[in-house]
Amino acid sequence: MFKAAINAELLKDAIAALAVIVDEVRIKIKPEGISVKAVDPANVAMGIFELGSSAFDEYSADESEIGIDLNKIMDLLGIAEKNDTVRMELEEGNQKLLIDVGGLSYTLSLLDPSTIRAEPRVPQLDLPAKVVLNGADLRRAVKAAEKISDHLLMGVSDDTFYMEAKGDTDQVRLEMGRDQLIDLKAGEACSLFSLDYLADIVKPTNKVNEVSLSLGKDFPILIDFEIANGAGRISYLLAPRIESE
Amino acid sequence: MFKAAINAELLKDAIAALAVIVDEVRIKIKPEGISVKAVDPANVAMGIFELGSSAFDEYSADESEIGIDLNKIMDLLGIAEKNDTVRMELEEGNQKLLIDVGGLSYTLSLLDPSTIRAEPRVPQLDLPAKVVLNGADLRRAVKAAEKISDHLLMGVSDDTFYMEAKGDTDQVRLEMGRDQLIDLKAGEACSLFSLDYLADIVKPTNKVNEVSLSLGKDFPILIDFEIANGAGRISYLLAPRIESE
Amino acid sequence: MFKAAINAELLKDAIAALAVIVDEVRIKIKPEGISVKAVDPANVAMGIFELGSSAFDEYSADESEIGIDLNKIMDLLGIAEKNDTVRMELEEGNQKLLIDVGGLSYTLSLLDPSTIRAEPRVPQLDLPAKVVLNGADLRRAVKAAEKISDHLLMGVSDDTFYMEAKGDTDQVRLEMGRDQLIDLKAGEACSLFSLDYLADIVKPTNKVNEVSLSLGKDFPILIDFEIANGAGRISYLLAPRIESE
Repeated sequence: MFKAAINAELLKDAIAALAVIVDEVRIKIKPEGISVKAVDPANVAMGIFELGSSAFDEYSADESEIGIDLNKIMDLLGIAEKNDTVRMELEEGNQKLLIDVGGLSYTLSLLDPSTIRAEPRVPQLDLPAKVVLNGADLRRAVKAAEKISDHLLMGVSDDTFYMEAKGDTDQVRLEMGRDQLIDLKAGEACSLFSLDYLADIVKPTNKVNEVSLSLGKDFPILIDFEIANGAGRISYLLAPRIESE
Repeated sequence: MFKAAINAELLKDAIAALAVIVDEVRIKIKPEGISVKAVDPANVAMGIFELGSSAFDEYSADESEIGIDLNKIMDLLGIAEKNDTVRMELEEGNQKLLIDVGGLSYTLSLLDPSTIRAEPRVPQLDLPAKVVLNGADLRRAVKAAEKISDHLLMGVSDDTFYMEAKGDTDQVRLEMGRDQLIDLKAGEACSLFSLDYLADIVKPTNKVNEVSLSLGKDFPILIDFEIANGAGRISYLLAPRIESE
Repeated sequence: MFKAAINAELLKDAIAALAVIVDEVRIKIKPEGISVKAVDPANVAMGIFELGSSAFDEYSADESEIGIDLNKIMDLLGIAEKNDTVRMELEEGNQKLLIDVGGLSYTLSLLDPSTIRAEPRVPQLDLPAKVVLNGADLRRAVKAAEKISDHLLMGVSDDTFYMEAKGDTDQVRLEMGRDQLIDLKAGEACSLFSLDYLADIVKPTNKVNEVSLSLGKDFPILIDFEIANGAGRISYLLAPRIESE
């Protein structure tokens, strides 16, 4: 059993953040909220998504698992107005999700979860450095780097967080000291990441006040922020690229 | 003789509503206003368009008929500002239409009406059910249906008007009771229509308060609304599709 | 030595006005400001660009010449907010330009000026007629003409400035009398210009109050207006087309 109502824009934002990683997901439904763990097809990025029951206007659920095509949901939500309420109810047998948006009733066929890649194991990483910054700053640096290169170097050196991209001839660098950051835990950290992935991942951070980045030396980065006014959270784990000289 | 002045946006809206059916039209000019009847090239949709002299700031006309390429007019009006006045005057011999928009004078060559498909005969239909609803509601249902299917079923059942689209796996349905409608004349009605045509036809209804739909059982639908603040009217007649099972 | 700071939008507008003529330019840097003279690859249009030191918030420079790819600069400035300050500094040896926008540091490799077409000689022309008009009026006439033709005839006849385009069947004409113009110096003038070029050239005039046009009979046109609130100026010289009958 699953029956819930939620603000349309909030749901849109949450699903958009997840959709940058995969198209088809297994959603775990529990009495305390819904969650997803998914890996992108190339095994480079992982998304860990949690939306607690408090994000919903109404929420009641038993434990179950459903398979969903995120593009279909995004498409349907495209018709909703910002302040519409989206009502969802799982049909007996978990084969169909009934969605009501402003009087329009959708009957969405669900995917068999067993046909979707299983939940990945989240690796335990010891990431020595941690930086908390404004999401818009992060997004702007990534956009600037994209103009110049395919890769972005991110690191912490003493009390400074830096992002740097090098093109064939040009270079862009952003440095943020402790004063310009919301928080900084210094530690040895310097890793290179694919801008293809980063650009997608930071898209939803544009309206996020605090994004936390955990970094190591040639290690994956953990990008982590709250969604739904604190009622949910999304974390991305992105594998590093090895610099070819 | 034809000489008229009209608000640019009002003219744009009126022509846009007509242009969803055909590109080239015969416009009938009379002392009391202008009118067009046209059928789309595939004979599926008919548009019946009337714009009375009261829609114009200035209007004086003898009876005549001109042939016009609607795309050209739309293109020229694209340059007009919302509140510009468009002045039109037919040249002696009805070969050219002089159009003035904010000091810019266009000389538009007209088409020989005899080269354009003749006015169709409007069939007399006995459509038992009639629904009056807000244009934005209609447009939203059609947009939602398009995400899922190529066809939309529209009907009246007891005191409820419904629109329903079925895709391979998913389904969308809008039901509106007597309370949610502006008016309802109940009657046996249930017909299937091509969303290709419907999507075009309902585009101009987005800012229309009252759209009236007349329906029958596997019969054409008559979609009808006022334009130009009541000084004009456009009706579309759309042939039904037969459901292939 | 060159070190300067300037408002991001002002710089964007100035470079956009220049970029309609060429992609790669030699910029002459002098203590009193920067300047560019460039001809388009087909030798049809010339741009003469000057931006005085007063356009900058900070400015200090020795004489030098640098080669720049305008598209790269436009691309980077795309990330700047309207009110950001852009700081630029030339590296020792004039090989790289350091650009800082809101904490993001770009290192832009410059082009060897000797690989860029040399500054053209600006011809001395005796253009008898001169018209000063609002930039938005000019832009609107050019946009209207583009709908109909590839060429625009511009001329002065008695006390009237006119622009006229003829298509295969249609025609558009704008006439402006002395009263509708900011200034008019009457003189024999009537020349035909390519709308391909004109459309690009008048794009930046949309927010310009006074654009001056100097014209002759089958002669180039000089289009001239202030940029950066009067601290700079751009002039375009566009060669006439010969009307093929």
